Formats: sequence, structure tokens, C-alpha cells
Amino acid sequence: MPPPIQSLSRAAAVLRLFATGTGRFGLSDTAAALDLPKSTVHGILHALEQEGLVEHDTSSGTYGLGPELVRLGGSWLRGHELRARALAWADDLARVTGEAVHVGVPHPSGVLIVHHIVRRDRARQVLETGRVVPARGTALGTALTTPSSQPAAGTSAASSGLLRAARQRGWVCLPDRVRDGMVSIAAPVHGRNRGTVAAVSVSAVAARIHEDATVRDRLVSSLRACARAISHDLGAAHP
Amino acid sequence: MPPPIQSLSRAAAVLRLFATGTGRFGLSDTAAALDLPKSTVHGILHALEQEGLVEHDTSSGTYGLGPELVRLGGSWLRGHELRARALAWADDLARVTGEAVHVGVPHPSGVLIVHHIVRRDRARQVLETGRVVPARGTALGTALTTPSSQPAAGTSAASSGLLRAARQRGWVCLPDRVRDGMVSIAAPVHGRNRGTVAAVSVSAVAARIHEDATVRDRLVSSLRACARAISHDLGAAHP
Repeated sequence: MPPPIQSLSRAAAVLRLFATGTGRFGLSDTAAALDLPKSTVHGILHALEQEGLVEHDTSSGTYGLGPELVRLGGSWLRGHELRARALAWADDLARVTGEAVHVGVPHPSGVLIVHHIVRRDRARQVLETGRVVPARGTALGTALTTPSSQPAAGTSAASSGLLRAARQRGWVCLPDRVRDGMVSIAAPVHGRNRGTVAAVSVSAVAARIHEDATVRDRLVSSLRACARAISHDLGAAHP
Repeated sequence: MPPPIQSLSRAAAVLRLFATGTGRFGLSDTAAALDLPKSTVHGILHALEQEGLVEHDTSSGTYGLGPELVRLGGSWLRGHELRARALAWADDLARVTGEAVHVGVPHPSGVLIVHHIVRRDRARQVLETGRVVPARGTALGTALTTPSSQPAAGTSAASSGLLRAARQRGWVCLPDRVRDGMVSIAAPVHGRNRGTVAAVSVSAVAARIHEDATVRDRLVSSLRACARAISHDLGAAHP
């Protein structure tokens, strides 16, 4: 039998696997993906199912993430100081601009969206809270990695230039990596020690962000006012 | 050393504990709550922290839920067939009524809110997705426990009458247990086998739900149309 802590890391690997692809996996697929005997994986799945962390669909025989994760994730979101302080300001930003607004925090795999306000129009939009977006090449990720220090060694010239400009201006504008024709502008949120603890962004089709080649002033000032207000509420000295 | 599966149930108990109260616990408090030696709990906390499932605040020395739970919970929500099919209809219901709309599914501790559309006004509202509300005494819970079968033995007369009325009418109206002056009306959503798989509700201050002593017809018909549309999309034969 593996030691207890190993079983925890294996259980976490099962949960990570189940957050990929269609989210439904058979016992054999799960065992193959984790490179473990089926009997071991079956024991882990059964234990996770008992706790509501995994769901077993008896009709298809497949396993997937369990609803208890929604409850636990919701608890994290409601208890998160930054998110709580950001909610009202982000809602205001969405109302004033009429566009989609995201608040993101650093996550080992990129930027975790902790709040998303959908655009106020008829188009169907997927709520992106809980999604992790890449740190590189996204407005949120670039705003998050805009410290007051020097660029890290190995940062490419273009990327370093982008970061320097963002640092000087206090905001960044980038085309969306995933959604064609969409553009995002983002600004960093500072915590008590002036470190960048989050980023807030406004996203829209390019024509609503740019006028000619210039980002609309009104958007930039609303975005920066929002980022400063959240930073102030978090105790940043000179947001 | 405890067997691996025991360590999983202990880890799940830690996560459940961290979803209560302020959400921040010291090592000693956690060990006391779980009635386990500190060294054992420290090992579990360290392993969970490695996986992002627990967060350690080094300044206060306390532990709490980790952001990975938000990602996993978000993945569950995005992959949930019922929720995906309910989104558009629930959004329509919120737009037509102008009130807050919730979609809930059964959870071992009550009703798990899988979708919440906030009211379209200026009041600050907390996004309740991921919250678990009681099954008894709530409109969502009562609508969920409205089967086409007989009431379970031991159901009180009042509750049984409520369920019978709800079964006949196809909807239920109850004052909010938590928010004073608020009233919710809810209707069941059926799946392929006619079983009740979810419930959808509209919540507002009493005066916007009732007119004299009667629930406004427009609200009831919009709510029922939404519940039927979701049921139809889920494959219910005669929603």
C-alpha cells in the first residue's frame, strides 16, 4: 500500500485529470492516464466518490468531478478578501463601460479568473469564473506580471518592452489569444506591500476598445480608476 | 500510518472544515476539530497545499481552502449538462421577470446552487453559485422533493400538504428562510425518466411576487415555461 500522502497526491492527480477534456473517464482510462493499477485507482475513486469529490455515472460507468468541488470552490470565492473588495468596483466598471469585466489572481498554471461580469447584451456568454487563462500573451497575465522591479532575465525584448510600457502607463492592451477579434485592456491591482496581487480587465470587440489606433480614453480611465479603488480598499499606500 | 483511503477521508474532512466559519484555521484548531495528532494533520495540510487544494498564509500561520478548488469547481459547472442547458432559459427568465433566478440540484447537504442570475438593479448582490441551501423549508428544496410518487412516511401533515399542492400545481411559493421579506417561487425540472433532477426559482421582495394574496400569474407562467423548456432540452417526454 502506498503511504497516505502519496494517496493524496494521486487523488489530486485524478481530480486534475477529470478537469480535462470531456470530464468523463472510465476506470481503465483513468488508470492508464495515471499509470497505476486499476485496483489502486478504483480504491481512490471510491473514496473520492464517498466524499462527493467524484461522481460516478452508473449508466455510462464513467467518473467525473463531483458537486462538492463547486461548494468548496464557492466557499473559497466568498471568503477571498480581494474578490470581496473587488466585486462592487468591478460591477461599476462593467456598468459604466457596458463591456465584459474580469478579475484575475496568480495561479500556478496562469491567471485564475475569480470574478467575471458578462456584457449587458443579448449574446449568450459563458461565465468564466474558475477558468485559468495563460499568464503569457494575455492582458490579465501581462498586467499581473508588471512589477515595479526589472524584467526577469530571459524575458524577450518584445515582451520586456511590453512590460516596461505597461509599467510606465499602468495598463496594457492585447488582442485576445482565444477569441478572434476581441481585445482586452488590463490594469494591475496592488496590495498592502505594493506587490501586484491581481489584475482587472475590460474585454470587447476591437472597434469598441480602439478608436483609430488609440485605445479609448474613457475606457482606460474607467479601468484605472477601478484598479486604483480596489488597491486602495486592499490597503495599498499610493494606489 | 493510516491506510491511504483513510487519509483521503481525513483530507476531505479538512476541506469541509475549511469551508465553515471564517475559513481560516491554525494547525492546532484543525487538529482539535478533526481529533487527530498535530503531526498527522500537518502532513495532510502540507500534501494538500502542494496540490493547491489548501492555502497557507505564512503571515498569520493559518490555513484555508486553495484556489485549485475554484478551478475544479468551475470545471464541474462548465461540464454539467443540466446547467449548460439551463443557462439560456434561466437568463431569459431573469430578463423577463427582472428578478433574481437560481437553478439548484440535489446535494447530500441540501440544494446546490449551480446557477444564479442577480437582479438587474443597483443593489449589491452576492453571487450564490456554489452555495448549498437547505432542502426543507426552501422553495428550491420543496420543488426538488416533489416527486410523482406518494409522500415519504414520516412527512408531517403540513409539509405533505405543501408537497401535494406543489405536485398538483407544478410550482411552490415560500418565504425566504434567510432573507427577511423575500419570497421565492420554484418549479421542478424533469430529466429523461420523469424524475426531478433540478429546480428553478425566482426570488424577490414579497410585494413583487404577490398581488393581494395571490402569486402574480405572469411570474408563475414565466417560471413554469422556463422549467418546462429546460426539462424538454434534457429529454423529458412530456415536460
